[in-house]
Amino acid sequence: MNIHIQLLPFPIGPELLFDRVVVVIDILRATSVMVQAMSQGAREIIPVKTVEEAFQTAKRFPPDTTVLGGERESRKIEGFDLGNSPREYQGEKVRGKRLILTTTNGTKAFHAVSSGKKVLVGSFLNIAAVAGRCFELNQDVLIYLSGDQGDFSLEDTVCGGMLIDRIIRKGGKSFTLTDASRSAHILFQKFEANIVESFYLSQHGRSLVDRGFEEDLPYCARVDMTNLVPVFKNGVIRSY
Amino acid sequence: MNIHIQLLPFPIGPELLFDRVVVVIDILRATSVMVQAMSQGAREIIPVKTVEEAFQTAKRFPPDTTVLGGERESRKIEGFDLGNSPREYQGEKVRGKRLILTTTNGTKAFHAVSSGKKVLVGSFLNIAAVAGRCFELNQDVLIYLSGDQGDFSLEDTVCGGMLIDRIIRKGGKSFTLTDASRSAHILFQKFEANIVESFYLSQHGRSLVDRGFEEDLPYCARVDMTNLVPVFKNGVIRSY
Repeated sequence: MNIHIQLLPFPIGPELLFDRVVVVIDILRATSVMVQAMSQGAREIIPVKTVEEAFQTAKRFPPDTTVLGGERESRKIEGFDLGNSPREYQGEKVRGKRLILTTTNGTKAFHAVSSGKKVLVGSFLNIAAVAGRCFELNQDVLIYLSGDQGDFSLEDTVCGGMLIDRIIRKGGKSFTLTDASRSAHILFQKFEANIVESFYLSQHGRSLVDRGFEEDLPYCARVDMTNLVPVFKNGVIRSY
Repeated sequence: MNIHIQLLPFPIGPELLFDRVVVVIDILRATSVMVQAMSQGAREIIPVKTVEEAFQTAKRFPPDTTVLGGERESRKIEGFDLGNSPREYQGEKVRGKRLILTTTNGTKAFHAVSSGKKVLVGSFLNIAAVAGRCFELNQDVLIYLSGDQGDFSLEDTVCGGMLIDRIIRKGGKSFTLTDASRSAHILFQKFEANIVESFYLSQHGRSLVDRGFEEDLPYCARVDMTNLVPVFKNGVIRSY
């Protein structure tokens, strides 16, 4: 099993994706929100690229079945129900609902890798479950980091490195690491004892603190709070 | 002083370069060859992108003043004088000569960043000297890694991390690290006690071993064997 990690969010050709399991990671905060919402009973999530697309998509469904969520410049979008803080995605606000989500980095990433054989939603919240699924599927893995507006993101890389760690610890298979996945693994080891420290050091983490979202940092660092592995398929994220 | 590192060799706009000191790094082996050749008295180096361009460039000068060097698939190019092994660049072969060099990754990188305010040639061989020059120039620094055919390269990143380490150790200034430069610094610390180990772990290092160039690995890991800081300017590398 070859495990590669795409350290920067660049377009990748379908020829690299069609036979791979792709895990999309955007720790602060899109994939953390997604896993949190599904764990609270959201029915499905539709990630869209633009605010306009979010409003248009919502019109296709009865109003009481959908929730509009997401951010621009980290803040809730005007006319939306929820922002991009996973702490908001609790109980009745999301249970049984269809979440239409648009964020700066994360929701775009799903569309960039939609031709992957399987596309999984990864975060610290469900990392053991995602590692288990990758191991069972027994295909080459591409970890796709959403990054920070096109830039390399420390917290996404640490999570990718932890996923690699959890997959290879299962043992019993031959694993090939690329230079990038080996480096992500080393970065994870550096922060293993204190994951949230990597958020406080990262550009995006510091920007969230500055904007009043400091409580989201430990919330996105809750390792293995659920066993759900949401899957992106035909434009929709569900727990298949 | 902001220190950023470009982990993958992608085009960057001139607006990011015009006020920065750019350090190009291609440890295995282009920038190691360049520093080695200059330390052995080469007069100047002209990095070119293609084999055809190398032959055409050579025709502009008297034959006994030039040396053609470089590789394709790690091997010496037909009709060239020297390959891409720094061990070949010794004594009379290069002293006083103009080296015309074409390699798979490294020579292209110089053209990608030619609009930088200053463009320096970095390697383990001259890392303290390059760090000293960056510190003196007192501008923002962009470390540009040549990578491995478009991919992230472990050994280049470790060298970039060591350069960051050597710059910030000088102290007395305020340094800003991006997520990428912080990560490169952590990766360097992991291999600090045994730099060449990172070459043996890297894809490009292993490929060189397979192709019979194992001796190049420790040769490219000789830290601070020269104080030269070659500079790329108007298409030519010299010790200004």
